[in-house]
Amino acid sequence: VAKRLEKFKTTIFTQMSSLAIKHGAINLGQGFPNFDGPDFVKEAAIQAIRDGNNQYARGYGIPTFNSAIAERFKKDSGLVVDPETEVTVTSGCTEAIAATILGLINPGDEVILFAPFYDSYEATLSMAGANVKSVTLCPPDFSVPVDELKSVFSKKTRAIMINTPHNPTGKMFTREELELIATLCIENDALAFTDEVYDKLAFEVDHISIASLPGMYDRTVTMNSLGKTFSLTGWKIGWAIAPAHLTWGVRQAHAFLTFATSTPMQWAASVALRAPDTYYEELKKDYLAKKLILVDGLKSVGFFVYPSSGTYFVVVDHTPFGFENDIEFCEYLIQEVGVVAIPTSVFYLNPEEGKNLVRFTFSKDEATLRAAVERMKLKL
Amino acid sequence: VAKRLEKFKTTIFTQMSSLAIKHGAINLGQGFPNFDGPDFVKEAAIQAIRDGNNQYARGYGIPTFNSAIAERFKKDSGLVVDPETEVTVTSGCTEAIAATILGLINPGDEVILFAPFYDSYEATLSMAGANVKSVTLCPPDFSVPVDELKSVFSKKTRAIMINTPHNPTGKMFTREELELIATLCIENDALAFTDEVYDKLAFEVDHISIASLPGMYDRTVTMNSLGKTFSLTGWKIGWAIAPAHLTWGVRQAHAFLTFATSTPMQWAASVALRAPDTYYEELKKDYLAKKLILVDGLKSVGFFVYPSSGTYFVVVDHTPFGFENDIEFCEYLIQEVGVVAIPTSVFYLNPEEGKNLVRFTFSKDEATLRAAVERMKLKL
Ligand SMILES: CSCCC(=O)C(=O)O
Ligand SMILES: CSCCC(=O)C(=O)O
Repeated sequence: VAKRLEKFKTTIFTQMSSLAIKHGAINLGQGFPNFDGPDFVKEAAIQAIRDGNNQYARGYGIPTFNSAIAERFKKDSGLVVDPETEVTVTSGCTEAIAATILGLINPGDEVILFAPFYDSYEATLSMAGANVKSVTLCPPDFSVPVDELKSVFSKKTRAIMINTPHNPTGKMFTREELELIATLCIENDALAFTDEVYDKLAFEVDHISIASLPGMYDRTVTMNSLGKTFSLTGWKIGWAIAPAHLTWGVRQAHAFLTFATSTPMQWAASVALRAPDTYYEELKKDYLAKKLILVDGLKSVGFFVYPSSGTYFVVVDHTPFGFENDIEFCEYLIQEVGVVAIPTSVFYLNPEEGKNLVRFTFSKDEATLRAAVERMKLKL
Repeated sequence: VAKRLEKFKTTIFTQMSSLAIKHGAINLGQGFPNFDGPDFVKEAAIQAIRDGNNQYARGYGIPTFNSAIAERFKKDSGLVVDPETEVTVTSGCTEAIAATILGLINPGDEVILFAPFYDSYEATLSMAGANVKSVTLCPPDFSVPVDELKSVFSKKTRAIMINTPHNPTGKMFTREELELIATLCIENDALAFTDEVYDKLAFEVDHISIASLPGMYDRTVTMNSLGKTFSLTGWKIGWAIAPAHLTWGVRQAHAFLTFATSTPMQWAASVALRAPDTYYEELKKDYLAKKLILVDGLKSVGFFVYPSSGTYFVVVDHTPFGFENDIEFCEYLIQEVGVVAIPTSVFYLNPEEGKNLVRFTFSKDEATLRAAVERMKLKL
């Protein structure tokens, strides 16, 4: 294995989902629904396949999907972007992240991450040879440590990676925090890369794209995907929106990472993104009900549950149950309790910082969530 | 744009397909069929979507598809591989190439390419910081220059990239050539990366996987895809087969490039790979008929047509028509004749070497091939 990837292990999501199957445990680990995506999107894919839309898509996306992405972004953020020169379709947001980082970051460039961070950020930055600086969000609300962030930023900062709503914590960056980041980016001529795949799962306040703050669009790559919003995580459709000068870099990397993304799925995704507002309202309502079941359940089991205002995840403190760390707790949980959660220490440069925290997903039907809570009540 | 990608242009395939649309030209450039894939595969995808197979696949592939790949490889090469530890499903062969190179090549490693080479090889090697050595195949039969190859190999050689049947020339590496490469790999402890996406389009002799030569499996990554064999280039399903110690590197990169590949399409691909032999025989028969139409047509137009024994491409010499180079010839061909071909100079480290050659694809229905020939007869 090449040095750039030597230190990384099999992704925690793959490890945990394998263990879930092996132990017949209820999988509240990897974030994917155990219910299906909407029929109108599935039928659109079927139609596209039947209609013979099965050859290479244009590398950066089929025109109607690029347009649908631009339309949706306008509705959501107010920003008007050119679908032809500012939107790139990718094979999931993971590829958007890889293409952005490999397309825009040079070896030695400093890039700031907020810990805990989604594991692909650090791995892809390592592939690009970047110099990673990590700033740890402060529990219990996972707020941005203002002074620390200011001190980490410098003229050497090439980019900062943002993820809001935030996986694994469910934190949503506040307008004040985003404004601070924007000011620091502008002062230091740095880019912002923002992963917003959970933007439609914002339960308390509206999601804010940092690209919409003054002076930011021109230095921001905004990434999103179909999977979470349409409960079709297995379709692997994502995109990156950025001004043309940054899109150029993203597209160059994308062209040689995957070249193009599934044509029939892009047709279906175009229909999906044009769904009426009621679709998004229903989705949020359904997820809010699931969230309450899980959060109340976890509290009744005896966990300290951290506030989560977005995503389909919540983070809890497992220390009331007397385990050494998150890994040991998760092992016990899988083997003895029959429930899978995700340890969070893997999302920090310094694993110690995450050792008390584990993440549960509520992207499951209500019966599954209740069954998991019952198992924990009985055996923890 | 990051330095690693600075020197690369928009892929020639994207450029040419855009020009085809703009000028209403017949597109014999980018290699994709203008006919549809088989119904039994399309119906399998539809069934998978309807059945709710729409969430994340296991990162390295759904078990039934990994098995189907191993079964097919056994049939084709005689090699028995473990689907669980030696097969990785990727988002097209392009991603298999990227994952192999980013997962196994370190900055400064020497990697040998045969020119002309598919453009993603050089770009991905540049992303990995490799030191590219190019050996030019010798026209008219694009044979391997034995002495030159021997002199390029050294203890510093980390890998050699092979592509057989070969795009753009249609050359198939002979057993003697593969044996020479194998000997050099073994002597110098180098890896072989082999792109075999056109293995089912071998018109004269059987395709040989270098992995099947003595001592080679352990040092080879064999890559392939669904697109060409099943006329479904837009589905973006590929894979890499390699011994576990190399698969580890491929999977590490894959995990962070795309994480996983479309779940419903993997179900369909599993059905596809288990197609009876008659499917493959029919495919070859159909393509052979197309090939004859194009080759005879190009000869009648006045081109020197190089022998092509595999792929759905042929390369011709355009010099009888008096153009300075392949780019100028292709521009005239699009604008004045209404036919798109691919200039080959972009596939050489030294573009001069390709300046007399252009590539045509015969992955089109017969009427389209005839119409393109008519246009050229009339206007060249
Ligand atoms: C790409 S697999 C992981 C899914 C996910 O986003 C998560 O569980 O955090
Ligand atoms: C991945 S786009 C190019 C298709 C192809 O393999 C070719 O035309 O050479």
